[in-house]
Amino acid sequence: MSALPALIDDLVAANRILAGLNVLDGFGHVSVRHPGDPNRYLLSRSLAPELVTPADIMTFDLASNAQDDDTRTPYQERFIHGEIYKRRPDVQAVVHSHAATVVPFAVSSVKLRPIYHMSSFLRAGASVFEIRERFKMTDMLIRNNDQGAALAEKLGDDAVVLMRGHGFCATGESIPVAVYRAYYTQSNAALQQQAIALGGSVTYLEPEEAERADATNRSVIMRPWSLWRAKFYAQGSN
Amino acid sequence: MSALPALIDDLVAANRILAGLNVLDGFGHVSVRHPGDPNRYLLSRSLAPELVTPADIMTFDLASNAQDDDTRTPYQERFIHGEIYKRRPDVQAVVHSHAATVVPFAVSSVKLRPIYHMSSFLRAGASVFEIRERFKMTDMLIRNNDQGAALAEKLGDDAVVLMRGHGFCATGESIPVAVYRAYYTQSNAALQQQAIALGGSVTYLEPEEAERADATNRSVIMRPWSLWRAKFYAQGSN
Amino acid sequence: MSALPALIDDLVAANRILAGLNVLDGFGHVSVRHPGDPNRYLLSRSLAPELVTPADIMTFDLASNAQDDDTRTPYQERFIHGEIYKRRPDVQAVVHSHAATVVPFAVSSVKLRPIYHMSSFLRAGASVFEIRERFKMTDMLIRNNDQGAALAEKLGDDAVVLMRGHGFCATGESIPVAVYRAYYTQSNAALQQQAIALGGSVTYLEPEEAERADATNRSVIMRPWSLWRAKFYAQGSN
Amino acid sequence: MSALPALIDDLVAANRILAGLNVLDGFGHVSVRHPGDPNRYLLSRSLAPELVTPADIMTFDLASNAQDDDTRTPYQERFIHGEIYKRRPDVQAVVHSHAATVVPFAVSSVKLRPIYHMSSFLRAGASVFEIRERFKMTDMLIRNNDQGAALAEKLGDDAVVLMRGHGFCATGESIPVAVYRAYYTQSNAALQQQAIALGGSVTYLEPEEAERADATNRSVIMRPWSLWRAKFYAQGSN
Repeated sequence: MSALPALIDDLVAANRILAGLNVLDGFGHVSVRHPGDPNRYLLSRSLAPELVTPADIMTFDLASNAQDDDTRTPYQERFIHGEIYKRRPDVQAVVHSHAATVVPFAVSSVKLRPIYHMSSFLRAGASVFEIRERFKMTDMLIRNNDQGAALAEKLGDDAVVLMRGHGFCATGESIPVAVYRAYYTQSNAALQQQAIALGGSVTYLEPEEAERADATNRSVIMRPWSLWRAKFYAQGSN
Repeated sequence: MSALPALIDDLVAANRILAGLNVLDGFGHVSVRHPGDPNRYLLSRSLAPELVTPADIMTFDLASNAQDDDTRTPYQERFIHGEIYKRRPDVQAVVHSHAATVVPFAVSSVKLRPIYHMSSFLRAGASVFEIRERFKMTDMLIRNNDQGAALAEKLGDDAVVLMRGHGFCATGESIPVAVYRAYYTQSNAALQQQAIALGGSVTYLEPEEAERADATNRSVIMRPWSLWRAKFYAQGSN
Repeated sequence: MSALPALIDDLVAANRILAGLNVLDGFGHVSVRHPGDPNRYLLSRSLAPELVTPADIMTFDLASNAQDDDTRTPYQERFIHGEIYKRRPDVQAVVHSHAATVVPFAVSSVKLRPIYHMSSFLRAGASVFEIRERFKMTDMLIRNNDQGAALAEKLGDDAVVLMRGHGFCATGESIPVAVYRAYYTQSNAALQQQAIALGGSVTYLEPEEAERADATNRSVIMRPWSLWRAKFYAQGSN
Repeated sequence: MSALPALIDDLVAANRILAGLNVLDGFGHVSVRHPGDPNRYLLSRSLAPELVTPADIMTFDLASNAQDDDTRTPYQERFIHGEIYKRRPDVQAVVHSHAATVVPFAVSSVKLRPIYHMSSFLRAGASVFEIRERFKMTDMLIRNNDQGAALAEKLGDDAVVLMRGHGFCATGESIPVAVYRAYYTQSNAALQQQAIALGGSVTYLEPEEAERADATNRSVIMRPWSLWRAKFYAQGSN
């Protein structure tokens, strides 16, 4: 449990970093599983990520109920986080984003696929969650545990899932990995867009290349994380 | 009437925010209906939005005549604002912009349509005002009440109208809503551009999805507004 | 002649502004005709525009010979400026740029045409100077008066001329007008690129619309100029 | 050997400049051949380029073994540098990058070709190294001398080589030339992308134009270098 303040500091840093990298703007959020209780997770109250401080972090159970009689307004879409943590014990951090380069792939019949080693976590390509399939006409948000569970089911064993008419979620075994994947999902989308627009044939990573590269990337994850903390959260202590 | 100084502060903030978000550059403007008199509106004198201060705000009647013997130079296109307020009692704030991503849709036969929940206010897609239809060869500006009325007529009951060879207008029931819509019109245009360029089929929001999402977005409008004030108008008081 | 220090200050401001607006990077330059002698012009010594100060400004005759025994290294392409001033008595300022959005139109068979009122100075579209036509294989630079004269001839009575495999020149009756045109040439290129990529039909300004809009824009030229000076050259005095 | 501290200062500047120009992010690296021993080269320890200081510079032999009992963690891909220096005595500096605009050309059948004089070092177009050809399924990195040698062989006598699913390398006879080429490879890729998207025919530089322009550009290399040092490494001393 002594790891908690350091983890909250990393979670605040993740909010600032993702805003600094334009993965999040006034909307979107990032969470981490509680280091002392796998059935809880930590997430800011409803607030623009760039403004989040340690005091804004709330604790939720996996049904996304606020703990400790915390009555502050939570994000409406916190069920994304709870249901992914429930279904995926390997996942320790989740980012939900509307990043501009990714949304086009969430509304297109063209699949987001890994174009270079940096986004090898996309493997055979990202699935797209179509909320209409089970929930018909909605306001497009994940507003309850049923909708969160359907999204988590579409994610399956992947690292990333797109959401039609909405955005995407990136997951990882730590905050730095989830932040890395959110950022490089954004980068890959921009690169794939450009590669397609060139009009020639495009070579994507082979699944085996992707698998090998993903393992390598996770081994050097602290390099970009250290840079991003220094650039976007220099005031942080850890 | 005691709400006036606070509203002027928000209007100045809106000018700085829209410049900071690249919705406005040296040109374009944002107005608000007078809180004490629905037949008047507030708008800066002719000045780049990024430089606007409370002392620059002028008052106009709905025929766009300056009030209080104010002889400072007004924007040439203030008639946009007066005529929209005249026709649309529900509208309390109006943004006029030449934002780069939107102009292509104002000159193309391809319609701007809502690609994700953030821009659900676009509903079935934005109409394009063609000034040639009634006014033949012009300098493209809205220079009088007749032209303003024709533009307001094209806007109809929508939130946004594009202007061929020119730009667009976004409206809302408050300054934060109009600013939000101007910003996400810009974002949607960029996203739709990219989605089309991917070459596959594109799924837009259904009208019912758009209607529901718009209601939701208006309920959380203060989240991006607070962020934008903090980022682009920290020196403001309110 | 008393106008000289103020004009040099504006010329330095133009260098900083064009760098700030990404119209110029480490290369490119901006000049002004001498206020006291129409057969001379003012241009920085060979230096990145963002670093130019009043002390760096040199004087040239229209054959682009440095005056006043000034032995500092001039830009290799100063002949662009001298030959345009020689041929076009109405031109008082010239910008030469490699701006990223414009170069594609300088190498494409697709013509740069005015898409909105802000770039109405493009009229029926910008001509492209092909240096190979008269000079065969070169290093692509305008290195002497013959090449400068050929470029000025291609410019003709237009405001802007593109240069194949190189960049473009924008001219105006004052520094603010030339800077405005360089900036909005860049903007128009980006917008036209996007409009074409949408795949539908594109409506360009009619020549009469362009002519009228250009007159209007020149009447409000100090609005963006004041903004740009405040943003990119606040330290200037005038 | 007295040139060493000045060269290390330039190498640190190059790291900061390339990060500032978005050629490098958390990944990528830049090296220089040792000024006193052509069989050694200088390269930072494994660190994001934006954070590199003089104390982080390590020395390697051309087999990419760390010298002076330096046990700090080196970049995994240092073999890129060693093998290029081994094969190309004219090369004094090497940049390895994943720059966003270039990667699409590294995965597309469309060749990166020089669109304007600034990128004339691309000559007849950049080759693409396909690691699968000799090494089958990998994690896409250059992890040993064999892979580095194969990459250097593909580079041949060119200035730039692309790497499929990965990025590119730019070389030069000095740090400023290699940095210039890395930056303008990035620029050329963006411009060529846009020129192709316009849909018309595209005119590339002729080989003779490219050769002449490259010689010219190298003669004014200190102009952008001075700007970049001032902007991104003002704190440096030299």
